[in-house]
Amino acid sequence: MTVSLDTGSAGATIVIASGGLDSTTLIYHLLAHGSRVRLMSFDYGQLHRRELDCARQVAEILQVPHQVVDLRAVGVLLSGSALTDLTVAVPDGHYTDESMRATVVPNRNALMLDVAVAVAVTTHCGAVAFGAHGGDHAIYPDCRPEFVVAFNASARLANEGFLASGFSVLAPFLLQSKADIVRLDATYEVPFERTWSCYRGGARHCGTCGTCTERREAFQVAGIADPTSYEAA
Amino acid sequence: MTVSLDTGSAGATIVIASGGLDSTTLIYHLLAHGSRVRLMSFDYGQLHRRELDCARQVAEILQVPHQVVDLRAVGVLLSGSALTDLTVAVPDGHYTDESMRATVVPNRNALMLDVAVAVAVTTHCGAVAFGAHGGDHAIYPDCRPEFVVAFNASARLANEGFLASGFSVLAPFLLQSKADIVRLDATYEVPFERTWSCYRGGARHCGTCGTCTERREAFQVAGIADPTSYEAA
Repeated sequence: MTVSLDTGSAGATIVIASGGLDSTTLIYHLLAHGSRVRLMSFDYGQLHRRELDCARQVAEILQVPHQVVDLRAVGVLLSGSALTDLTVAVPDGHYTDESMRATVVPNRNALMLDVAVAVAVTTHCGAVAFGAHGGDHAIYPDCRPEFVVAFNASARLANEGFLASGFSVLAPFLLQSKADIVRLDATYEVPFERTWSCYRGGARHCGTCGTCTERREAFQVAGIADPTSYEAA
Repeated sequence: MTVSLDTGSAGATIVIASGGLDSTTLIYHLLAHGSRVRLMSFDYGQLHRRELDCARQVAEILQVPHQVVDLRAVGVLLSGSALTDLTVAVPDGHYTDESMRATVVPNRNALMLDVAVAVAVTTHCGAVAFGAHGGDHAIYPDCRPEFVVAFNASARLANEGFLASGFSVLAPFLLQSKADIVRLDATYEVPFERTWSCYRGGARHCGTCGTCTERREAFQVAGIADPTSYEAA
């Protein structure tokens, strides 16, 4: 399934779907609130490519259009991040650790959002949404509220006269914690076992990298059973 | 030649080089003002692909690094523009004509600038520059001063803590006319005959599409001999 020039996209919301816990819950959240969604994932050469399969599976479960955009030609220019460069080790630890800087992919959200905005113009979509949340703020500057505000202003000016009326870039979880997101499962029954977080991208979640640490903590704090199979107990 | 992780890029300026008259003059302008430049061109499936060859030739003449980034996977999603879609006719006329809306590629400048900003972070470049000018304002919303201001704010927030000190997205010709740009030739001796404007991308410039019309006018207004060979007299 592809979105392309599908006229049924008019008024729909393009969701940046990484295949992770946050964006997958976001899809369920938007559907529950009456949005029609189109999923867009990005292949930027991330070593944890399993997340793309997870996004595909969720699209199939929900029977919603899904498109994987090939940005590998850009990804190869961004060596130096542990997420795209085999020579950089994925750090263990917590998002608040200085070592987590190695997991930043420069300008990633702006790039993905700008592709989605371009497609939104072409297909008359009413919104673009992504799963940034409060836990991301410590390390990822492009997940902070001030970025979302500035990006909206820039995107609207860049496409003034061409965007659907009322168009907006949405980040509904922007001020929530990952535990808050996990708690939404009680309402939406999100298939968390089909979501992928681990930056190491092995057969199972490693359980110790930054995003595994954050994932485990979220389930613990939320008091919800974690269906994830981790390498490290 | 490629930029990649060339440490010599630290402090350099990445110039979005379309192969057209404006961005080519911009390269000479920046070099004349002491900048070290890296050229970045984009293949987004534009039908006037000859412009990419022009960018390559200028890079060779100047012996500066040049990189063509393949964004065709994004371009195919943006059907509906006369610049990427064979089924949409390239309109004749002037930039101020309503028909010129067909030549807009949605969000193109934000996308190209985003890639350049990401590479600037990775390679420690000090600036990104592009050739937007006053004549573009009428039709291309992503060439207006308000966009450049908003994009700068967004890009800095998206990459706070990772950008080179004093980093900026520059558009030195933003308030100048295309005739003003042509007049710079007296100082820089830009090889205008190696630049490409025509949206039709034939063997010669058509002479009647929006950008050919604007190119011809610029030389006439500047009172400088136009070295371009046009199909239509």
